[in-house]
Amino acid sequence: MTTGKINVSVENIFPLIKKFLYSDHEIFLRELISNGTDATLKLKHLTSIGEAKVEYGSPIIEIKIDKEGKKLHIIDQGLGMTADEVEKYINQVAFSGAEEFLDKYKDSAKDSGIIGHFGLGFYSAFMVAEKVEIITKSYKDEPAAHWTCDGSPEFTLEPADKTTRGTEIILHIAEDSLEFLEEFKISGLLSKYNKFMPIPIKFGTKPQTLPKPEDAPEDYVAETVEIDNIVNNPNPAWTKQPTDLSDADYKDFYREMYPMQFEEPLFHIHLNVDYPFNLTGILYFPKLGSDLQIQKDKIQLYQNQVYVTDNVEGIVPEFLMMLRGVVDSPDIPLNVSRSGLQADGAVKKISNYITRKVADKLKSLFNENREDFEQKWNDIKIILEYGMLSEDKFYEKAGAFVLYPTVDDKYFTLEELKENLKEKQTDKDGKLVVLYAGNKEAQHSYIEIAKDKGYEVLLLDSPIISHLIQKIEGDNSGLHFVRVDSDHIDNLIKKEENAISKLSEEEKESLKASLETYIPKAYTVQLEALDSNAAPFIITQPEFMRRMKEMSQSGGGGMFGMNNMPEMYNLVVNTNSDLATSILNNKDKSAQESLVKQALDLAKLSQNLLKGEELTAFVKRSFDLIK
Amino acid sequence: MTTGKINVSVENIFPLIKKFLYSDHEIFLRELISNGTDATLKLKHLTSIGEAKVEYGSPIIEIKIDKEGKKLHIIDQGLGMTADEVEKYINQVAFSGAEEFLDKYKDSAKDSGIIGHFGLGFYSAFMVAEKVEIITKSYKDEPAAHWTCDGSPEFTLEPADKTTRGTEIILHIAEDSLEFLEEFKISGLLSKYNKFMPIPIKFGTKPQTLPKPEDAPEDYVAETVEIDNIVNNPNPAWTKQPTDLSDADYKDFYREMYPMQFEEPLFHIHLNVDYPFNLTGILYFPKLGSDLQIQKDKIQLYQNQVYVTDNVEGIVPEFLMMLRGVVDSPDIPLNVSRSGLQADGAVKKISNYITRKVADKLKSLFNENREDFEQKWNDIKIILEYGMLSEDKFYEKAGAFVLYPTVDDKYFTLEELKENLKEKQTDKDGKLVVLYAGNKEAQHSYIEIAKDKGYEVLLLDSPIISHLIQKIEGDNSGLHFVRVDSDHIDNLIKKEENAISKLSEEEKESLKASLETYIPKAYTVQLEALDSNAAPFIITQPEFMRRMKEMSQSGGGGMFGMNNMPEMYNLVVNTNSDLATSILNNKDKSAQESLVKQALDLAKLSQNLLKGEELTAFVKRSFDLIK
Repeated sequence: MTTGKINVSVENIFPLIKKFLYSDHEIFLRELISNGTDATLKLKHLTSIGEAKVEYGSPIIEIKIDKEGKKLHIIDQGLGMTADEVEKYINQVAFSGAEEFLDKYKDSAKDSGIIGHFGLGFYSAFMVAEKVEIITKSYKDEPAAHWTCDGSPEFTLEPADKTTRGTEIILHIAEDSLEFLEEFKISGLLSKYNKFMPIPIKFGTKPQTLPKPEDAPEDYVAETVEIDNIVNNPNPAWTKQPTDLSDADYKDFYREMYPMQFEEPLFHIHLNVDYPFNLTGILYFPKLGSDLQIQKDKIQLYQNQVYVTDNVEGIVPEFLMMLRGVVDSPDIPLNVSRSGLQADGAVKKISNYITRKVADKLKSLFNENREDFEQKWNDIKIILEYGMLSEDKFYEKAGAFVLYPTVDDKYFTLEELKENLKEKQTDKDGKLVVLYAGNKEAQHSYIEIAKDKGYEVLLLDSPIISHLIQKIEGDNSGLHFVRVDSDHIDNLIKKEENAISKLSEEEKESLKASLETYIPKAYTVQLEALDSNAAPFIITQPEFMRRMKEMSQSGGGGMFGMNNMPEMYNLVVNTNSDLATSILNNKDKSAQESLVKQALDLAKLSQNLLKGEELTAFVKRSFDLIK
Repeated sequence: MTTGKINVSVENIFPLIKKFLYSDHEIFLRELISNGTDATLKLKHLTSIGEAKVEYGSPIIEIKIDKEGKKLHIIDQGLGMTADEVEKYINQVAFSGAEEFLDKYKDSAKDSGIIGHFGLGFYSAFMVAEKVEIITKSYKDEPAAHWTCDGSPEFTLEPADKTTRGTEIILHIAEDSLEFLEEFKISGLLSKYNKFMPIPIKFGTKPQTLPKPEDAPEDYVAETVEIDNIVNNPNPAWTKQPTDLSDADYKDFYREMYPMQFEEPLFHIHLNVDYPFNLTGILYFPKLGSDLQIQKDKIQLYQNQVYVTDNVEGIVPEFLMMLRGVVDSPDIPLNVSRSGLQADGAVKKISNYITRKVADKLKSLFNENREDFEQKWNDIKIILEYGMLSEDKFYEKAGAFVLYPTVDDKYFTLEELKENLKEKQTDKDGKLVVLYAGNKEAQHSYIEIAKDKGYEVLLLDSPIISHLIQKIEGDNSGLHFVRVDSDHIDNLIKKEENAISKLSEEEKESLKASLETYIPKAYTVQLEALDSNAAPFIITQPEFMRRMKEMSQSGGGGMFGMNNMPEMYNLVVNTNSDLATSILNNKDKSAQESLVKQALDLAKLSQNLLKGEELTAFVKRSFDLIK
C-alpha cells in the first residue's frame, strides 16, 4: 500500500481561474479595488490598536488610465507589502491574506469591517492583462518591492524605489480587453461595483469654481481649480444608525441609488441586525405601476459595501422582490446557485427576518397614521396580498394592517369588516356575506343595486384576489365572499322575507316558456319576484364557477381544466316589472320577440357582453329609433 | 532579482472545488456518470481502431444504493485504470485525463463522441461524500487497484481483487447529504441529467411478464422475471440523421421530452451542423397560449448528450426562446455568465445559425403547403413578429413567409398585400393605405363601414404590432398603416370626390355651435358630409397619437412621456344624416340636448367608451323606453 499527497499542477490553475472562477471579466476591477480597500482598512485597524506606529491620514484609492501605454493603474495607500509578504501572499495562490490576518487579529478585527471575501481576487487581473506589475511599499521600515508576472507561473521579484506607503497594481491590458482603457467603461464599472465602498476612490479630476473673495473687484472673473474626482460615497445611508437619519436622508439615498426614478418612495424599512447573522440595508416601497414584470431586479446585494448582484432571488422573499433598496450582508454565500441558496439555513433565516421586519413596519405605519396608510393602500396592496398567499408567517401578521377598501373609499381591517357588516349582511342562515366588485366601472349597475339596499361593497381588484378570498374563507368559517354580479342581490343575501309575486304560477310558466323561445341556450332563465322598479332583466355569473376559473387562469389553484370551461351566465327576469307583464301579454309574436331581444341586449350591455356584430346592430337600431 | 514559480497549496484546493466550481451539489452524479460514459466510449474507440484487443460487448453503467451502508455505487464497464493510471489521473488534480487522451488520439477520436468536458468532475464526489473509494481494473492485463481518500489530500492506493473490466466508484455519503441515498432522489437526478446519455444506465430492476408459451395450459398463470431497469434512451432523435426520422418519430421524441404536454407541436426544425462549430438539436414550435411569460425555459441544452441546463439565454436568439426542444453542442462554453456568452464569437455564430435555420424552415413550410402554414399562423405570429423586430437577419428573410391576415381570413405576404390593395386603396396623393383592426369585435362597426366601401381590413392583434408597422412603414415608402377607427373612412383613404352637402355653410356653423354646447370638451367635433345612410355620429381616435402611446406602453419606442397622455378622440358628425337635420331643426333645447346625448352615447358604445355610471343610466333610460 502506498500513501501520498494529491498534487495540483500549477499550469492548470491559471486557465481554471480564468475560465471558472470569474465568468464576468469586468469584475477584475471590483476585486482589485476590494484588495486596496482591504489593505487600507487593515492599516486603519493596526493604527487604531497601536500595532502600526504610522499616521493613518486620509487615504484614498486612485484609478488611472494610461491609454498610450495600454496600462491601467490601481493605487492604494494601505499597509503595503514587503518583499517577503509578496512572496507569501501573491506567490501562494489561494492562500488568502485576509484569512490569515483575520486569524491573527480575530477579536479586534471583527468589527472593523474588513473585506476578506475575495481571496483569489488578485489573480482575476490576468483575465484582462497580459502582464501584471505590483509596486509596493510596506508601512514597515523595509524597502519597496516590484513583482512582475506575465500570467505564466514564472514571476520576477526585485527591489523598487517607491517611497510612499501602499500598493500600485499596473495592468498591461491585453489586446482582447482594450475596452478597459476607455474612460466611460471604467467610469461605468466604478459606478456599478464601487459606488458605496468605504474608502474614497479617485478617478481623474474635475474643475471646481473657487468662492468669490469678499474684496473681489466689480470685474471679478470666477476662478476654477482642478480637484480630485471622488466617484463613490464611502458612507451610504444603510451603514448609519436609523436614529442618525431623517426622512429626507432616506429619500436622498433613494435618489442616489435610482437617479432615473422620478417618483418618491412610499416609505422605507431600515434593516439592522447582527445576531444570529449580520445584515444591514434599507428597503423602499415604491409606487407600483400596473405592470409588475418590469419592476424586479431593483434591490441590490452588497457585502461590506461591495456590490455583488442585483439578483436577490432566494435572499429576499419573493413577494418583496418588487421593493427597491440595498441588502448588505457578509453572511450570504456567493457563487452559490439558486437551489443552493434556498437550502442554506442562514439565508432562510435572513429571508424570514426581512419578512418579519416588513410586517412590523407595516403594522407601525398603520397604527401611527392610518389615514396616510389608507392613501398608500392601492400602491402596496399587490405586494401585501401576494405576501399573504406565499408566506405563512406574513399571513399571520397581516390581520393587523391589511385593508379591505369599499367602492366608496372606506377601509376596513378584516375584523372591522366583520364587525361592520354583521348586522346588515348576515343572511337568514347566519352566514356573513361580503359583497365585492372587481371593477367599479364594469359592475356599476350591480354595485348601485347593492348600495340601494344599504349594503357595503368592497372593491377587490388585484389579479390574485380570487386566491386570497379563497384562503380567507378557509380560515374564517361563516364568512362568504360573493361578487356583486354573481346573482340578484336578494339571492346573494337571503333574508326571511316572502316575495310577493304579481304573476300567478301559471303566468310565470307561460312567461318562462315565451322567454326560452327567444333567449339563447347559453343563458339560464331564472324568474324572480323583485321590486317592480328593479331592472327587468339582469345577467348574473355564479360566484363559484367564475372564481375557480379565475384561479385557474392566474395560475395555481382552482380546478384542473377550469381554464377552458365556457363562461356561465344566468338571466334573472323580474316578474314584477312592467316589462315582464308587457312580454307576457303581447300577442304579436314578432313584437314580443323584439321586446325580449332588446331587453336582453340591454342586460348584456350592463354585463359588458354585447359586442361586435350584435353591438353594431343594436347601435344601428337605436339610431333609427331616435332619428 | 529573484524568479520562481507560483505555488498552489493543495490544502486550499478542495474547499475551493467544493465552494466555487460546482454550486449545485447534485451534479456530482452527472459528473461521475459522465466519467463512466467517457471511459466506455474510449474503450469502444480503442477496440474499433484495434488498439485494445478485448471484446467491447454491450457495456452498461450501473447505479446502486446501499442504504444501510450509506454508500452509493457507480459502476462502469469501460477501460478501467491501472494503479499507475490512478496515480496519474486521479492524484493529479486538474490534469484532465480526457485532454491527454484527446491529444494522443486526436484525429481518430474526433468523431467518436468522447465526453471530455468535465475534467475536474471526479472531485465533485467530495461535495456529498466523506470518503471515496475507487476499485478499478484496466482492460490491460494488470492487477486491479483500490484507491481511498477521505477528502484530505492524503490517499491510499493498494491492489484489489476485482476481476471484471471497468471502474467502480463508491461514495460514502456524508451526514449532510443523506438525501442522495433515497431512491426517488437518484431517480429524479438520472431523469434530469442523464435521460439521453449514450451508454445504457441501469438503476435497479423491474418486473417483466414473460410471453405466454404456445403450448400453455388453460390455467396458465403469466410468469414475471426481474430485468434490468434501464433509465435512459441512449439514442435520442436529435443524434440521428433527419432522413432516418419520420414525422411520427419527431412527435414521439417531443412526447418523450415533455410527457406532461398534451398538445402536439406545430412543426420541428432539425439542427445539424459540424462546421465552423458542432451543433445538433431539434426545435419545436409549440401551440402558444396567450400568456407568453410562462413559456420560456423549455429548450434544453446538452453537451454530447449530457444535460447542461434549461437556460439557453444568449445561445438561442431571444425571439426563439419560446420554442421547445434540444440543442446539443460541445462548442458552447459552460460556466460562463450571460454577458460572457453574448460576447463569445462562437456563441454568436450558433445563435445566427439557429436564426437562419428557423427562417429557412419557415420559408419551405410556406412554399410546400401554404394553406397549412396559414392555419398555423395565429400560433406562430408572435414569435415571428418579435423576431422581425429584434433580429435584422430574420427581418430580411421574413418577407418570404410572414403573413398579413385580413378580418375575413385571407392571408397576404407584404408583396401580395401591396399588389392587391394597389388599385382600390391608393389615395389621391399616391399613398397606399393599409387599413387594419386590432380587434374584430371591438371595432366591428368600423370594419363594416370599410368593407362596405370594398376595402380590405387586416387583423393585426399582437401586442407588439405598433412597433412592427412602424418599422415596416419606415422600410416601405408610400405605405401607410391606419387603424380602421382612426378617422372616418373617407378621410382615411382620400379620393378625388367632392362630397355633396345637404347643409349650407351657415347651417353647418349653427349645427356645430349647438353640438359643442352639449358635447364634452374631450371630443373634437368634426363635421363631414357623408352618405346620408352612414352612421350619424362616429367616434374616431387619430392613428399617430394612439400608435405612439401603444408603443410607449409596450416598452421601447414611441415618444417619451406618451404613456401618460390622455386618450384623444374626434366626434365625426355626418351632416347629411337625418339625425343631423333633426338636431339642427329642433327648437326645444331640452329635446335637442337629449337627442345629442343619446346619439353620443350610441357612438361611445361603438367605441367601447360608454361605461360605469353613464352606461347604467343609458340602460335604465332604454328600459324605460321599451316598457
